Amino acid sequence: MSCNFGNNIKLTVFGQSHSTAIGAVVDGLPAGIKIDFDRVAAFMARRAPGQSELSTPRKEADEFKILSGIVDGMTCGAPICAVIENTNTRSGDYDKLRALPRPSHSDYAAFMKHNGFNDIRGGGNFSGRMTAPLCFAGAVCIQILESMGVYVGAHIASIGKVEDDRFDPVSVCKADFDSILSKPFPVINDRQGEFMRKEIYDARSSADSVGGTVECAVVGLKAGIGDPIFDGMENRISSAIFGIPAVKGIEFGSGFEGSKKRGSENNDAFVLRDGKIVTETNNHGGILGGISSGMPVVFRCALKPTPSIGKEQNTVNLVSGEEEKLVVGGRHDPCIVPRAVPCIEAAAALVIADYLM
Amino acid sequence: MSCNFGNNIKLTVFGQSHSTAIGAVVDGLPAGIKIDFDRVAAFMARRAPGQSELSTPRKEADEFKILSGIVDGMTCGAPICAVIENTNTRSGDYDKLRALPRPSHSDYAAFMKHNGFNDIRGGGNFSGRMTAPLCFAGAVCIQILESMGVYVGAHIASIGKVEDDRFDPVSVCKADFDSILSKPFPVINDRQGEFMRKEIYDARSSADSVGGTVECAVVGLKAGIGDPIFDGMENRISSAIFGIPAVKGIEFGSGFEGSKKRGSENNDAFVLRDGKIVTETNNHGGILGGISSGMPVVFRCALKPTPSIGKEQNTVNLVSGEEEKLVVGGRHDPCIVPRAVPCIEAAAALVIADYLM
Amino acid sequence: MSCNFGNNIKLTVFGQSHSTAIGAVVDGLPAGIKIDFDRVAAFMARRAPGQSELSTPRKEADEFKILSGIVDGMTCGAPICAVIENTNTRSGDYDKLRALPRPSHSDYAAFMKHNGFNDIRGGGNFSGRMTAPLCFAGAVCIQILESMGVYVGAHIASIGKVEDDRFDPVSVCKADFDSILSKPFPVINDRQGEFMRKEIYDARSSADSVGGTVECAVVGLKAGIGDPIFDGMENRISSAIFGIPAVKGIEFGSGFEGSKKRGSENNDAFVLRDGKIVTETNNHGGILGGISSGMPVVFRCALKPTPSIGKEQNTVNLVSGEEEKLVVGGRHDPCIVPRAVPCIEAAAALVIADYLM
Amino acid sequence: MSCNFGNNIKLTVFGQSHSTAIGAVVDGLPAGIKIDFDRVAAFMARRAPGQSELSTPRKEADEFKILSGIVDGMTCGAPICAVIENTNTRSGDYDKLRALPRPSHSDYAAFMKHNGFNDIRGGGNFSGRMTAPLCFAGAVCIQILESMGVYVGAHIASIGKVEDDRFDPVSVCKADFDSILSKPFPVINDRQGEFMRKEIYDARSSADSVGGTVECAVVGLKAGIGDPIFDGMENRISSAIFGIPAVKGIEFGSGFEGSKKRGSENNDAFVLRDGKIVTETNNHGGILGGISSGMPVVFRCALKPTPSIGKEQNTVNLVSGEEEKLVVGGRHDPCIVPRAVPCIEAAAALVIADYLM
Repeated sequence: MSCNFGNNIKLTVFGQSHSTAIGAVVDGLPAGIKIDFDRVAAFMARRAPGQSELSTPRKEADEFKILSGIVDGMTCGAPICAVIENTNTRSGDYDKLRALPRPSHSDYAAFMKHNGFNDIRGGGNFSGRMTAPLCFAGAVCIQILESMGVYVGAHIASIGKVEDDRFDPVSVCKADFDSILSKPFPVINDRQGEFMRKEIYDARSSADSVGGTVECAVVGLKAGIGDPIFDGMENRISSAIFGIPAVKGIEFGSGFEGSKKRGSENNDAFVLRDGKIVTETNNHGGILGGISSGMPVVFRCALKPTPSIGKEQNTVNLVSGEEEKLVVGGRHDPCIVPRAVPCIEAAAALVIADYLM
Repeated sequence: MSCNFGNNIKLTVFGQSHSTAIGAVVDGLPAGIKIDFDRVAAFMARRAPGQSELSTPRKEADEFKILSGIVDGMTCGAPICAVIENTNTRSGDYDKLRALPRPSHSDYAAFMKHNGFNDIRGGGNFSGRMTAPLCFAGAVCIQILESMGVYVGAHIASIGKVEDDRFDPVSVCKADFDSILSKPFPVINDRQGEFMRKEIYDARSSADSVGGTVECAVVGLKAGIGDPIFDGMENRISSAIFGIPAVKGIEFGSGFEGSKKRGSENNDAFVLRDGKIVTETNNHGGILGGISSGMPVVFRCALKPTPSIGKEQNTVNLVSGEEEKLVVGGRHDPCIVPRAVPCIEAAAALVIADYLM
Repeated sequence: MSCNFGNNIKLTVFGQSHSTAIGAVVDGLPAGIKIDFDRVAAFMARRAPGQSELSTPRKEADEFKILSGIVDGMTCGAPICAVIENTNTRSGDYDKLRALPRPSHSDYAAFMKHNGFNDIRGGGNFSGRMTAPLCFAGAVCIQILESMGVYVGAHIASIGKVEDDRFDPVSVCKADFDSILSKPFPVINDRQGEFMRKEIYDARSSADSVGGTVECAVVGLKAGIGDPIFDGMENRISSAIFGIPAVKGIEFGSGFEGSKKRGSENNDAFVLRDGKIVTETNNHGGILGGISSGMPVVFRCALKPTPSIGKEQNTVNLVSGEEEKLVVGGRHDPCIVPRAVPCIEAAAALVIADYLM
Repeated sequence: MSCNFGNNIKLTVFGQSHSTAIGAVVDGLPAGIKIDFDRVAAFMARRAPGQSELSTPRKEADEFKILSGIVDGMTCGAPICAVIENTNTRSGDYDKLRALPRPSHSDYAAFMKHNGFNDIRGGGNFSGRMTAPLCFAGAVCIQILESMGVYVGAHIASIGKVEDDRFDPVSVCKADFDSILSKPFPVINDRQGEFMRKEIYDARSSADSVGGTVECAVVGLKAGIGDPIFDGMENRISSAIFGIPAVKGIEFGSGFEGSKKRGSENNDAFVLRDGKIVTETNNHGGILGGISSGMPVVFRCALKPTPSIGKEQNTVNLVSGEEEKLVVGGRHDPCIVPRAVPCIEAAAALVIADYLM
């Protein structure tokens, strides 16, 4: 079912870009856990639009209201429902698009699935806006993980062809995440960050968009968590991550680069460090046989360039059945990657917390 | 649960590399479908070891026996159970490995999960051998898909740094798959195939292994199949594909390469071809918003080099707690990629058939 | 997961008796279905408290607000979220109960599960109030079923020892349901209904409560719907029905009475009626091997007397660990059975619609 | 999916009455648990046919073979697959039945579901024989439960109108179960047992069959296990129990009888016994709000009389479309209730173990 995720912690998301509200139901959290909702709001603000000159000028506060599951600031064992009202919507922008599917958007596929009855306004429930409830759930899970010494962090790994430094997959730690969080543009190497920002400006100034990648790591996870075959950590993380619109690829550890190597280069020898069994390198990305190895879990996601661009594009009118030209109006991000960073953290946190419950 | 996959067609796999048998239970198939088990056997033979000088010299016929679900060669609505006996096992090879986790194998992670009670022989149920039941289920699903005009095919896209040609993502069709199937080495460009084989020989002759990538396509799928958010086609395909040991990455359409591009380059314009709405290019890999667009579904997977190599490696003795040298014995593939090709087809077929039931 | 139900139509319920709101998310409905929300409201009103002198004097309008999933009065393929605010709550009534579990309520079991962090106010998410979102989902499903010629109806089959007539399990039809719906007290035999009402009055006037049974039927369902073994219609209906607090038993067809009979008495011969294959009797309750037989699905549920009574009862103080006397205050139904009738219809409709999607 | 059950312990059953074999896959058991397979066999023998003059003269040893999941007699974390060959089948008995659905059997419903492609031999996978794999899984779970101090037991509560004594729902304990297990006919009151046996003889001698009820209890379960609403213990137990063919009703605690009572009669006061909080009576059957109360879980199931009887019955020929007379041949139980006793224990054990994993 498209709106549900998880086994032990069950997330249900609902809403469309321009429905009265969107929201999340999070079931399966143990009772008696204090949730810091200011921190949840701060996490969600990282995803919200309108924060910098680089993103869409739409202003959506993404203020959530807790309807259930919390008593005196603590979980009570009942599902938490959080609702975010859709306020700043301009549905008129989309009216003429009903018959004109935007290239590389879900419009055409959704039309075919739903016989044209899908909510076209703002992309309906295919909208990137549906990552707001994901971020809510992830922000709650992150607090639970922290109480177990597990931390999740991510950074922009590339914008277009400009690459950030990578996490050191052996030593990456909470301090690295904190450092990135303190920056307005979430990268490791600020100089590269400047080049990335320039890429985004350039794309915007030419009425275009640009893609990128995000690298995410989970640290503090002990060895032995996960399952083989169909319920491995790679299966579950990828299954959650592809829930984020625009993600078109994922790789764990050395990933595609590792596929070019010899076993002797890619294998990670076990060694003792301070009496603890670790691997000398971490090409396996912290996951062996679907199960955590105790090393940092490290993965990278590819995000396509935002399909909404200001340039004229070709499409086919679904009503008249004729080819037409289309210029996508509305207010859009020239690059979705910065706002995807917390979404990817949230998806990872959700999966890890689900395993640990 | 690690051994289950699917919603409408439910696959359960069981067994360990050296247990009495391994097998698959496939539930949810409609009654009255004729299954050609010779074709199923032929499909499974593509995965079986010992077929060429390039793979492990172990001979396992992978002969399956149907225990249930079939009456007079037809499905009867009850789950199909197929069992494959494990015959040619040499458990002795693994005895000394119990305390010595092989680098980049599941041994250490499984030991930590199961407190040392996991079946170490041949990798237990983390073994690549568990893809045999997956191939059984996939071969059955492929026949069902064919009756609906849907075809699945794959080829080796690279070995080490040697790359095959790519499928044309717009025009790839059953004839392309048939052409690849007719070859002993499943590539598009045979000259590149020769270089790939050389890579594998070189790896083997240096007691090493090498990784690679596989490209897979599904054609004939009409638009409108799938779901958004957590149950999209990318979520489900990736979730199945990571069930194949050694897969460490997956990308759909232009994937990681697409993340480097501008929207104007990566977007796929809608056009009319013979009165049918198609996209001019197929950077989206046939999936938009988690739903099929009617274009070929195209994805690539990264497979790490086989972790079992003949070279001496470092590890830590789990009993003594001391560092040790290890040379992995046994009979292993210098490159798992050729045998992974049908596994990836099987996983894709399983997901697509699941959606279509 | 306690808050989710269904495979094809997925219901998620959330909320506690005294949380800000309760609600339902219904996923999996096809797009383009017109929903008559006035009828939904009318259905929910049958469950709402405060409607007659027989039920609790609490007035809760159970007015719902649609947050998502509906565009221009029609489903759009995205999940429907409906929210019902909790307005008329008097939490003070429950304050002293925190340490004093009410006999035959969930208080003690919930306390033990949640280490005392459960929401005690009004029974938290164990409250009968959680059947309001169930009724919302059921009312939507009933409209979908009606468009397929499938109808669901129920009546009070007994209050205490006073029994209503039974549905004729062979000929029960929509007209029978309409007749019951037109009455203020949902029984077949109004004279028996008067005796039942007297039972409830008597219970209330002695600060006591009384139990009863509800009989439910589904008509218009063609033969061949369902599954054997673990996913049969009896499994799924019972699984949903026990989601209604106070239900402690369920029987299909001749049920417990049938267990006293000979096969020759209980078997239902197949005969032709107007060229159609039917059974002469319907002791099987319309379900054979977990699958619909084409005859009316008929089942009865036992509901315990409301555990909240005005009489003094014994309990144990969970804080002091000492035995205490307790008089449950607040405003409660002397008999929950009348209000349970639509809940049982809703649960049945949900299961049947889930099978038919 | 009809062949799967469970969340943490996942059971998959496969097979038909006359397929090559039937079997069970049990996933989710922790590694390192010693399983006594002689005890498993002894448990399964209680269900197997041909044990007494009261049951079918078919002899099926129900000998199982372990294909996977066990190393050195212990679980290894991989799914256990057990296979039972179907040996003593006489398919010829059923040949003429293909067109003639047996009254109150699954034949007609299965025919309609599967368009006539279902396996008619011996009832296919609707056969009571499918409870053999359930018993295998239950017998394994029972051993796991015992290691936690949890015990499951059942007895024949009635045959026809002859009733056994009931378990004392407050004090029932393992010794009661052991006492019943030591008897050839599993009842509490042996004198009543004699009358029951007479009922069965009488039914058989008149070419008829007779139904009955089974009472089951689970003791040693601490308070706080379970979930509210859709995942309560009653939901899950009933969902498993209806997987046993012939079950047509289930009630927990005082059940249907309780529905006739006043709250003041049916409520279970909390009291202290030896410093422990218990209830004075146990009309709630050990479950409050879907969660265990710490009192014995007690439920009763209604089983219909075996539909296979030697008397002539009316049916309709599915091919000719005409009414016909039918005498069911083959070898059948005049009463399935004695053999259902371990099946019901197995289903209960499976659910409880699933909660406790």
